[in-house]
Amino acid sequence: MAKPSSSRCIYRSFEDAAAFMKVGIIGLTLQNSFAIKAHFPAIQQLSSHLRITALFNEDIGSSVDVIRHLKLEHATVFPTLKSFIASSNIDLLVVTLHERSYPLILADIIKYCKLCSEKDGKCTLKFIFLDWPLNCSVDFVKQMVEETTNLGIQTVVSLQGRKSPYVIKAKQLISEGSIGEINSMEIAANGIWYGYERSIKFESYLFQQESGVNIVTSSFAHIIDVVEYITGSYFGEINALLFNNIRKQELVDELGNKIGESVQKSLPDHLLFQGKLVSGNVPVSCTLRGGMPSKRFAKNFVIDIHGTKGDVKLEGEAGFVEISNIVLYYRGIKHDTLSALRQFNVHVPYDANKEMMEFYHLRKYNALLGNILKLYQSVLELHAEQQKNPHVPVLTVQSFGIQGFPTLSDGLLLYKLLAAVYESSLSGRTMRVDSTI
Amino acid sequence: MAKPSSSRCIYRSFEDAAAFMKVGIIGLTLQNSFAIKAHFPAIQQLSSHLRITALFNEDIGSSVDVIRHLKLEHATVFPTLKSFIASSNIDLLVVTLHERSYPLILADIIKYCKLCSEKDGKCTLKFIFLDWPLNCSVDFVKQMVEETTNLGIQTVVSLQGRKSPYVIKAKQLISEGSIGEINSMEIAANGIWYGYERSIKFESYLFQQESGVNIVTSSFAHIIDVVEYITGSYFGEINALLFNNIRKQELVDELGNKIGESVQKSLPDHLLFQGKLVSGNVPVSCTLRGGMPSKRFAKNFVIDIHGTKGDVKLEGEAGFVEISNIVLYYRGIKHDTLSALRQFNVHVPYDANKEMMEFYHLRKYNALLGNILKLYQSVLELHAEQQKNPHVPVLTVQSFGIQGFPTLSDGLLLYKLLAAVYESSLSGRTMRVDSTI
Repeated sequence: MAKPSSSRCIYRSFEDAAAFMKVGIIGLTLQNSFAIKAHFPAIQQLSSHLRITALFNEDIGSSVDVIRHLKLEHATVFPTLKSFIASSNIDLLVVTLHERSYPLILADIIKYCKLCSEKDGKCTLKFIFLDWPLNCSVDFVKQMVEETTNLGIQTVVSLQGRKSPYVIKAKQLISEGSIGEINSMEIAANGIWYGYERSIKFESYLFQQESGVNIVTSSFAHIIDVVEYITGSYFGEINALLFNNIRKQELVDELGNKIGESVQKSLPDHLLFQGKLVSGNVPVSCTLRGGMPSKRFAKNFVIDIHGTKGDVKLEGEAGFVEISNIVLYYRGIKHDTLSALRQFNVHVPYDANKEMMEFYHLRKYNALLGNILKLYQSVLELHAEQQKNPHVPVLTVQSFGIQGFPTLSDGLLLYKLLAAVYESSLSGRTMRVDSTI
Repeated sequence: MAKPSSSRCIYRSFEDAAAFMKVGIIGLTLQNSFAIKAHFPAIQQLSSHLRITALFNEDIGSSVDVIRHLKLEHATVFPTLKSFIASSNIDLLVVTLHERSYPLILADIIKYCKLCSEKDGKCTLKFIFLDWPLNCSVDFVKQMVEETTNLGIQTVVSLQGRKSPYVIKAKQLISEGSIGEINSMEIAANGIWYGYERSIKFESYLFQQESGVNIVTSSFAHIIDVVEYITGSYFGEINALLFNNIRKQELVDELGNKIGESVQKSLPDHLLFQGKLVSGNVPVSCTLRGGMPSKRFAKNFVIDIHGTKGDVKLEGEAGFVEISNIVLYYRGIKHDTLSALRQFNVHVPYDANKEMMEFYHLRKYNALLGNILKLYQSVLELHAEQQKNPHVPVLTVQSFGIQGFPTLSDGLLLYKLLAAVYESSLSGRTMRVDSTI
C-alpha cells in the first residue's frame, strides 16, 4: 500500500497545473459555519487553483451578503438553480447544505445538468462535491450515483475523516503489519449535541428530524467510515440499539450557563453498535453517547485497535473524527525494524524486546479546515491528471485506497451501513451489510 | 439502601454465635487451586465459626492427601457421595467443581438429601454453597431451585464479585445519587485464557467445552452480574456476538516463554454484548477479549459508569472482577455534601464548583480470598440469626440487596441472561431477557 508521501507527490503535480478550476457553491452563507470555517478558507488557500465563480442560495440576499463580506470578486450570484447550472461557469460544484431540501436540490442539479447536456452535448460541470450527510435514502443515493455516472460527473463526498493525518498514519501502521493482525476494536465517542444541555450556539438543523443530521448520520457515520478505511474492511454483520432517553434539553448560553428554558428533543441520544469486519471477522464495538458525561476519566473520542503484535489508539477531545485534532498512540514493532531484520531473509519471530511506543500529534493542526483542504487537493490532483491526459477516467469509488477521495459510491456504501443500523435497531435483528455498489 | 457499615454490624452478630457450622466439601483437592487459595483459607480465617468435618472426592486418595497436607484434623473422608451426605456431620456443604460431572453430582446430592429427609424426617444439611459456573442448563438450575426450596436448604452461589469492596462502594455511590441518574455504561475486559498463547499453568477445564467454564459463563457472567448488582437493574434487552477467531494457541511455560508446541482451541475468544437495563433504559456496552492485547493503552478490566452528575470508573489488571483487586475512581458531588445542603430544605441545583474527585483502593486487599471470605461471613450472619430465631426464613434471592448473598435463584436469573447471550449470537436476534424466577 502506498505511503502518505506518495499522496504528497501527486499533490505536487497539481501545483504545476496551468488552469484553475471554477468553483460554484450552493449553500455558502454567513450562517453556514462549516462552509465559512472549512470550505471557504480551503478554497482560499488553494486560490492559485480554485476560484469561486458562482453562488446560489434560495435567498438571493444571503448570496449578495456573502459576496460582500468575503470579497468574492470573481463570483456571480444566480437567482435560480437553473441559471446557476446553465451558466457554464462552473467546473467544480460544491453543495454545502444541511436541510430538508438537500435531496430536492440534488435532483434539480441533475435535471439541469441533463438539460445542458441535451442542449450543448455536454454539461460543463465536471465535479460535484457534496457535504455529508446527504439526507437521502439508499435508493436515492443509488439513483444519484447512476445519474452522475451517466453524465460523466465526478462526485466527491465530504467524508473528510479519511484525510485526517492520524487516520492515514493508523492506516499505514496497520497495512504495513506494524501491529500484526487486528484482533478487536473498541470505539467510544460523545455526540455533544444530544445531552441534557443544548447550547444556543448549536445550529438548529442538528435537532430537526428532517435535516437528516443526527448522531447516526453524523458522528457515527464519520467514525465508522474511518474505521472501515483504516482497517481496509467493510462490515459483514452488525447489530445496533438506538436510544432516545433524554427527552428534554436545558438551554445554555455560549458560556454554558443555563438560561432557564428547556426544549423538547426528538432525535436519538445514544447508539450501541457492534459488528464483525468482513476481513478477519474482527469484533468491533462502538458506543455513541449524547452529551459529554465523562470529561475526567475518559476522552470523548477513542478508537482502540488491538493487534496480535501491537496496538494503535486514537484519542480526541470530541466525538467528531472528521473535524478534530487528535492524538495517535502506537506500540509494537515498527515495519522499518521488521524490514531491516527480514532483509536477511530469516524468519523474524515476535520479540517483545524490540517493541516500541510512540505517539503522533500535530499540535497546531486545524482539522476542521485541514481535512477538507486535503480533499480539495485530491480533487485538484485528479483534475490535473485529467487535464494532462484526457483518458484518465472518473474515480468511481475510493474504497480503501490512499489516493483519491471518497465518491458518492463510497457514500452509498456508508448509507447502506446506516440503513442496516436503523433496521437492526427497529427490527431487533443482527443484519448482514451489503457492501456491493 | 443500607450502607456497607450496616452489613458489618450484622457481621459482628455472628461473632457471638455459640456453635460453629460443620463444613463438608466436595472438590477440595490439592489440584483445585480455587479451593486451596480461596475456600480453604476463608474457612480457616473463620475457624471459630466454621470447621471442615467431611470431605468427598471421586478419587478417595485425593481426599486423604488434602487432609494430610492441610492438617484437617476434624475431617472425615467418605468413600461415596451417599455416605458423605448421610453422615449427618455437615451443616454447610461446599461444592467446588469445574467439571462435566457437576450437574450429575448436584442431582445426586439432592437425591441423597431426599433420602435422608424421608428416613429421618429432616436433612441435616442446611446450606449448600455452589461454585460458579454451575455447568447446568437453565431448566436444570430451575429444577435445583425447586428441589432445594422443597428440602428447606439454603443455597449460596459464588458470585462473589458482589462482595468486592469496590463493587459495594460503587453501588453505594450510585444508590445515594452521587452520580445522579445513570446515562450509559461501557465495559471492557480481557479473558486471558483465550488469546494466542496458552500457559501450561492454566488448568485444563478452562479449555474443555464440557466443563462449562468459558469466556461467557466465567469472566462475562461475573462482570455482568456485578453490573446488574451495582446499578440495581436487570437487563431488558440484549444482543450478543460470539467469536472464535483464534483456532490455535501456542503453549508457553510459566515464565511466558514458548515451548514450541501449539494446541487447538474450540472455545470462543471474543464476546460483544450490548443491551438496555430495565431501569432507566440505560445503554450498556460490554466487550470481552481473549488474551491480553492491550497492556499499554488500556487496563484489562474497565467498567465506566456515566451519570447525569458524575462518573464512576472501576479499573483492574485482569478481566475477573470476582477475584481481582481493583481501583474505583469517582467524580461528582458526594451524597454527604448534597445531604448537608438539602437539610435546609432548599432545592439544590447541580453546581460544578462542588464537584469532587476521589479514588478508592485497598492496596493489600487479597480479592481472591477476600470476596469469598465475605460470602462465608454473610452465610454465618444468616445462620447466627436463624440460630437465635428459628422463624428467620431461608433467603430465596438476594437480588440487589446489600445484605445476604447470591442464592441459586440469583444464579438462575444470571443463567437466563447467559442463555439469551448464546441464543442471540446463534439466532442473530436482539433478545428480551426473562428476569422472573
